[in-house]
Amino acid sequence: MKVLYNNQFKNRDEVVIDIEDRGYQFGDGIYEVMRVYNRNVFTLDEHLARFVRSAAELKIQLPYSVEDIKTMLLELVEQNHLEEGSIYVQITRGTSMRNHSFPAQSVSPVLIAYPLPKKNPSQEQQQGIKMKLVEDMRWLRCDIKSLNLLYNVMAKQEALDHQCYEALLHRNGTITEGSSTNFFAVKDGKLYTHPANNLILNGITRLEIRKLCEANDMTMIEKELTINGIESFDEAFITSTTLEIVPVTQIDDTVIGQGEPGEMTKRLQMLFQALI
Amino acid sequence: MKVLYNNQFKNRDEVVIDIEDRGYQFGDGIYEVMRVYNRNVFTLDEHLARFVRSAAELKIQLPYSVEDIKTMLLELVEQNHLEEGSIYVQITRGTSMRNHSFPAQSVSPVLIAYPLPKKNPSQEQQQGIKMKLVEDMRWLRCDIKSLNLLYNVMAKQEALDHQCYEALLHRNGTITEGSSTNFFAVKDGKLYTHPANNLILNGITRLEIRKLCEANDMTMIEKELTINGIESFDEAFITSTTLEIVPVTQIDDTVIGQGEPGEMTKRLQMLFQALI
Repeated sequence: MKVLYNNQFKNRDEVVIDIEDRGYQFGDGIYEVMRVYNRNVFTLDEHLARFVRSAAELKIQLPYSVEDIKTMLLELVEQNHLEEGSIYVQITRGTSMRNHSFPAQSVSPVLIAYPLPKKNPSQEQQQGIKMKLVEDMRWLRCDIKSLNLLYNVMAKQEALDHQCYEALLHRNGTITEGSSTNFFAVKDGKLYTHPANNLILNGITRLEIRKLCEANDMTMIEKELTINGIESFDEAFITSTTLEIVPVTQIDDTVIGQGEPGEMTKRLQMLFQALI
Repeated sequence: MKVLYNNQFKNRDEVVIDIEDRGYQFGDGIYEVMRVYNRNVFTLDEHLARFVRSAAELKIQLPYSVEDIKTMLLELVEQNHLEEGSIYVQITRGTSMRNHSFPAQSVSPVLIAYPLPKKNPSQEQQQGIKMKLVEDMRWLRCDIKSLNLLYNVMAKQEALDHQCYEALLHRNGTITEGSSTNFFAVKDGKLYTHPANNLILNGITRLEIRKLCEANDMTMIEKELTINGIESFDEAFITSTTLEIVPVTQIDDTVIGQGEPGEMTKRLQMLFQALI
């Protein structure tokens, strides 16, 4: 496997990280995961735009232009002959003696990117999944796609420990999103999801769903849902770059709709497949 | 410099981290910083007890017994001939293909420990420092000493950018702590600090302050302080392992007391120096 390390392509085992890389000691960095379909990086520009935004919010100076990063990521796909899968890219604030404050300007950020194998969520996409309600205790800048993912990890694991596929996070009863997915519910033919503010990550697939709704005469409303309202959901689904659209058939003990993927969910799945 | 890598002592440049170490991609790990005075590790047992607690809260299985870790850290001090300084130790959930959920049981955590040079905060200890009020947007498990320190980094840098030494975090107006320090205020001869709950890290120096108060007939009350009350503080100070006790003479534009270290602060500094 070839790994992009800053602007060099190296073999996987040649890439090593220093113990004082700020990513390792502070989680001081950002990342993106991009889906590769048939050697094409899907929504590459959208992912890179969010990457740039995350870096700006954390005042991490990107060491390369967006165009250069784009060129390097496409080259990474080629060098790995990646037909289907994902590209993971992250950048940290660089390596410097441990200190909370930003390092000197002379310290360069560290960029790595490498391919991840294709996940195969086709069973989940067809049959739907169960979610476990978990309290959302994350920081208040979930809009930044940072490496501080410990609570996401804990929530995901709690879901798995309860035989659920994903956690459904709620903050004081208000549903925010999944541990690595956005959450949508359908009520009376309309689609609802949390507004894109500091409490959720504005997913690229979420943005594609919005475009699909606009183009296909479906109504998507950005509004807070509460856990008290779960029983009134006709349908629900989650989205992410690697999972695409996965129906939710149960949340804790509550069966959603008829306990199987709903009509609007299936329609969006079909429209999304046509996109990619 | 000798670095402890798992249970081996290696040269600094021989220790390298894999890109898929969960510490690097999720901040999925914990740490401690211990002060070394005259070749002795101060409050080593207390730090190790907190290390064990942090690991347990995150369900990270420590690969060595506390006694073994203690022996190895003491050996690290010896091998580096460390007279004065600190020992940094961290452990991550190990290296595994990127996935939010916990890796297989067979994946071993990665432990590193190495010496940090002595900070010299004597000017701050004598003259006091200014703090900058910053909104506390961290997660709701600040009691765990985890590697998810990005907001602490941002808050510290915001303070520095405003010519302040440290940030004073507040959550909806309630003062919690500093970016890497605990905060104390004196009012009418009594010492106040935030209760040790999920919103602050229960500092080892904080615990020493409590013991000093109990032994010396001083009253320490664990109670929430608000930013509206700052003007009524007679004294204030921050504590940490590396800073010990540093007086606070100003918070944003508000001068604390007479704008110089207070009597109770100085008394605690003297008592603390006698301890170490």
